[in-house]
Amino acid sequence: MDIKEKLKVDVSDVSGEVPYSLEDYKPMLNEFKIDLMEPLLSKIRNPHPLYSRGVVIGQRDFGQIIDAMNGGKPFSVLTGANPSGRLHFGNKLFLDQALWFQKQGADVFIPVSNEETYVFKKAQSIEQSTRTALSMVIPNIIAMGFDPKKTHIFISTQTPKIYELAMLLSTKVTVSTINAIFGFNASTPPGQVFYGVVQMAHILLPQLKEFGGPKPVVVPIGIDQDPYMRLARDVAERAHMVKPSSTYHKFMHGLRGGKMSGSMPESCVYMDDDEEAARMKLGKAKTGGAGTVDEQRKNGGNPDVCNVFEYYNFHVAKDNEHAKQVWQECRSGKRTCGDCKAECVELLQAWLKEHNENVEKARNKMDKFLNLE
Amino acid sequence: MDIKEKLKVDVSDVSGEVPYSLEDYKPMLNEFKIDLMEPLLSKIRNPHPLYSRGVVIGQRDFGQIIDAMNGGKPFSVLTGANPSGRLHFGNKLFLDQALWFQKQGADVFIPVSNEETYVFKKAQSIEQSTRTALSMVIPNIIAMGFDPKKTHIFISTQTPKIYELAMLLSTKVTVSTINAIFGFNASTPPGQVFYGVVQMAHILLPQLKEFGGPKPVVVPIGIDQDPYMRLARDVAERAHMVKPSSTYHKFMHGLRGGKMSGSMPESCVYMDDDEEAARMKLGKAKTGGAGTVDEQRKNGGNPDVCNVFEYYNFHVAKDNEHAKQVWQECRSGKRTCGDCKAECVELLQAWLKEHNENVEKARNKMDKFLNLE
Repeated sequence: MDIKEKLKVDVSDVSGEVPYSLEDYKPMLNEFKIDLMEPLLSKIRNPHPLYSRGVVIGQRDFGQIIDAMNGGKPFSVLTGANPSGRLHFGNKLFLDQALWFQKQGADVFIPVSNEETYVFKKAQSIEQSTRTALSMVIPNIIAMGFDPKKTHIFISTQTPKIYELAMLLSTKVTVSTINAIFGFNASTPPGQVFYGVVQMAHILLPQLKEFGGPKPVVVPIGIDQDPYMRLARDVAERAHMVKPSSTYHKFMHGLRGGKMSGSMPESCVYMDDDEEAARMKLGKAKTGGAGTVDEQRKNGGNPDVCNVFEYYNFHVAKDNEHAKQVWQECRSGKRTCGDCKAECVELLQAWLKEHNENVEKARNKMDKFLNLE
Repeated sequence: MDIKEKLKVDVSDVSGEVPYSLEDYKPMLNEFKIDLMEPLLSKIRNPHPLYSRGVVIGQRDFGQIIDAMNGGKPFSVLTGANPSGRLHFGNKLFLDQALWFQKQGADVFIPVSNEETYVFKKAQSIEQSTRTALSMVIPNIIAMGFDPKKTHIFISTQTPKIYELAMLLSTKVTVSTINAIFGFNASTPPGQVFYGVVQMAHILLPQLKEFGGPKPVVVPIGIDQDPYMRLARDVAERAHMVKPSSTYHKFMHGLRGGKMSGSMPESCVYMDDDEEAARMKLGKAKTGGAGTVDEQRKNGGNPDVCNVFEYYNFHVAKDNEHAKQVWQECRSGKRTCGDCKAECVELLQAWLKEHNENVEKARNKMDKFLNLE
């Protein structure tokens, strides 16, 4: 069974077994012709922990972004948000990277795709998604600490220039190309086909004249969303824009195994969870620990397949040294799952407390971030 | 050769021989299952001259509009404008009808499709179409005398609710339905397919909650645009809206024969032509006159195939009596083409003079009409 079957990669759904190790990701990266990040790591100044801790594993054309960062040239970072519900720590990974790129000089573009859930699943109306965007998603994004002067948050259907750019770009592709890439057919609603082009518009938006024209843009994106990148790069070339770069990081696991999902509260910590929720969720998390405490003291645990260690390594470790220490203490048997969870919960709670305060403050700052024309 | 071959009816192009008589239109109306207007005429109070002079010949579901007009119930009229260039007297026919419906109680909706020309022909950019809309098309529309309180002019790409409604409606149809109706295939750009849905959104816009919810809407539309109406009626039903009604009028002929076209200045009088242009264009117009003046005095001319009489009958006759008089004087040989053109030019020039003054005044009133959110 190949990796694609193990982790069914589809543009609208990811299910199945989620890998932990880079080795297990490699067949998937190869299949999508995604290059490894590792050979470029030494060129990145002040790398974000997600780079130095082996979470960001893949890239396409990331050299031009390193050149822009190191050369102080204009570039942008783009990461979308689907306001189908609350943001979780899997979503936070994208925002962490966007924030880091902003600190390296990038303008940040965040299209909020309030039509996506309706068009693909009819699970909620566009109005409901818009309300969710305004009441939860956007305040949580702003609370991460983005600079309003260098951040553009767009509500997709309320941003005429997105539809306009999509119409422009739609002349660069055919329906059959979209169908082939996304597995659509003649009975697909035209909105789904056109949404493929709208996503192109999201990705190429930073290169419009009003934002300074063609420039390198990096898109941290899920491996399962890669078809959009491949299409965007083709279309960019035809539209005389710079082909966008992309980075790919490991998926987070659901706390109890499988994939993390925003629609399964027990599988994830939400960015606006309260401290008690975090304690309960981590308490029940699947770990890489041995069967008994005695066994673990003797043989050690396996942090490489531990969903709690992911929270340290991807999110709350104080620094790289701390992440390494947690890993080593687990491996050597010095650290038990109970103690380890308790420390993780404490760090998580501190983050959540501060973040939730920032979310409340962010509610008054929304106008500064929203490009509503 | 059937009428469809004679007048190639296609959603994006009409060419070939244009009929003059209702009899010659009937096969086309039948083919599209468009009903005749004639049986309903007696129920219309204060009919517009285009009704009483036999120019509006077809309708679909117009009974509900007559009921709304006669019963003082809410209804709307919708007519689109494509800002690919200057408006001509063929376009004026739609505006005349919309204005009359407004006087019968309708709210008027005018979507200005600034993406259409780009998406279908790449003949001009969306920006260029937008400029044309703002500098020429919309001032000319306003100058017709619409009531700003009951008129909504939308620039399509700048109106988020159109894209949003299109996304909603796109879940009610499939790409293959759109392809079948418009003759698209797999190599069609997705923007063209989606534009089919955008047109649905234009047509169903008056039935949104913010405009008072579901209600009868009448769309005066070209016979060649009928596929949009049939699709809109199907979609309306699935979206729990009222199926829109439509009316169909005779095409105007090009002044020198064939079809009138905005891209052939000699074929049409533009709504903002100056008086001298009108004189020159009418002077060279193809008429139904006999070979010589003597012959015409003796046998009479044929106003039923005269492109100058169309200007009287469709536009500038002072009243129905005057239109009838012109027809009879031509038919009897009392009126020669030279005299007839001179009178027509005089009436046209008076209209153009007043209209052009109104266009200048309209430039300061645009904000009252534009629904820019």
